[in-house]
Amino acid sequence: MDIIKQQLNHRTVRKFKDIELDEKMIETLLNVANHAPTSMGMQQYSVIRVKDPEKRAMLGEIAGQDYINDCPELFVFIVDIYRNMSIAKEKGYEGESYRDMNRFFQGFTDGLLAAQNMEIAIESLGMGSVYFGSILNDIGKVCEILKLPELTFPIVGMGFGYPAEEPQLKPRMDMKFKFFEDEYKIFNNYLDEIEEYDEEMTYYYDTRANGRRSDCFSNQILKIFSNRNETAANVGKIIRKQGFLID
Amino acid sequence: MDIIKQQLNHRTVRKFKDIELDEKMIETLLNVANHAPTSMGMQQYSVIRVKDPEKRAMLGEIAGQDYINDCPELFVFIVDIYRNMSIAKEKGYEGESYRDMNRFFQGFTDGLLAAQNMEIAIESLGMGSVYFGSILNDIGKVCEILKLPELTFPIVGMGFGYPAEEPQLKPRMDMKFKFFEDEYKIFNNYLDEIEEYDEEMTYYYDTRANGRRSDCFSNQILKIFSNRNETAANVGKIIRKQGFLID
Repeated sequence: MDIIKQQLNHRTVRKFKDIELDEKMIETLLNVANHAPTSMGMQQYSVIRVKDPEKRAMLGEIAGQDYINDCPELFVFIVDIYRNMSIAKEKGYEGESYRDMNRFFQGFTDGLLAAQNMEIAIESLGMGSVYFGSILNDIGKVCEILKLPELTFPIVGMGFGYPAEEPQLKPRMDMKFKFFEDEYKIFNNYLDEIEEYDEEMTYYYDTRANGRRSDCFSNQILKIFSNRNETAANVGKIIRKQGFLID
Repeated sequence: MDIIKQQLNHRTVRKFKDIELDEKMIETLLNVANHAPTSMGMQQYSVIRVKDPEKRAMLGEIAGQDYINDCPELFVFIVDIYRNMSIAKEKGYEGESYRDMNRFFQGFTDGLLAAQNMEIAIESLGMGSVYFGSILNDIGKVCEILKLPELTFPIVGMGFGYPAEEPQLKPRMDMKFKFFEDEYKIFNNYLDEIEEYDEEMTYYYDTRANGRRSDCFSNQILKIFSNRNETAANVGKIIRKQGFLID
């Protein structure tokens, strides 16, 4: 039950102690990632550890999150069909089915299962982590910075290290809105239904905001939807550019 | 270190004891899923528990895996932007940025982090699990079976219960092929490099195959790529049909 206790106690950490991590520990974490489930055993993902301060700064700018620079470790998980494509070609394969979108999604899935496997191991070692979905604000640039070849694609970044803050547990919407039996369930009036959660979120103090009160959940959604980012939205274009066949 | 030991010992379980799972335990597992990290706190995924034997049989047929019917539990994780879209609309939002592909990928990511969080909790309770990526062989049909509204999308299925088999640990390709520093690393000759792994996989006995020797890794890749599935590949079409703006 200790694992579950840890999982129920998960919070994102954004400030870290300036302690370098042991290389043996990094190796263990990679080993954990490597043992996550993977679609058809194909292992269609890779991980890039970003140490170069210049690359870090560029990623931080894309993400709009300076503290990317201060994470003791920064890993970027990527879809990787390039490796298996190369193996198949060396074996004489002449087709191009590695460009299919189901392969892309298998790789995307593999990478995230590996990431979350590692995330839990990180916490079990007394460290904390933060996912950077925000590096996808400009996927094209991330591909350039990390020199991603065709048939690869960035999924998510993850910073980790020993925590220098103790954030509050962030309230979650009740599972009744997310968990259904046999078919999807549509609620008649979501705002009414989530009223209690909206209020709970209002009183949740996010440590990032120096003790400022948070906005309620529905207002956060409104803000996020209203703040459209054209470059970030343009995922399809980069998927094509990386050699996958969306159409 | 117990968590890490468990993770390094992970194996997929495909045969389960016919033991019904306690509802309290299911609730705990959902709670664990609910506490996984989620992009911008938006919680853009849902989970559908499939109990109906008819629906199970249909999913099993799509997956080409009969044993879907025999899993004590079967959960399907889905991208869910429908819920937040509804909340935003009730708040008077008139834009359509919830159709953007970055939202889709945020939901896809949320769902997989929740799934793997749950997977680890399942194993910590002495159970085993199997991911069914294969239900995506016909995504359009899955949408029909689970009555998925617009702005939702199936990600992956997961069966779990108490194991009735003890599969061998499946060998993984060395992390040196998957883990790079600062930029992607291309190898000159993958086949030479993975020779040892190819051999290791040949001698890995998959319990599914009743003790038959496995094919080497590079031959498996070749087989999978050669066995193209037009319906499965056609992911883009269904993403559009579900109301997302790929283009």
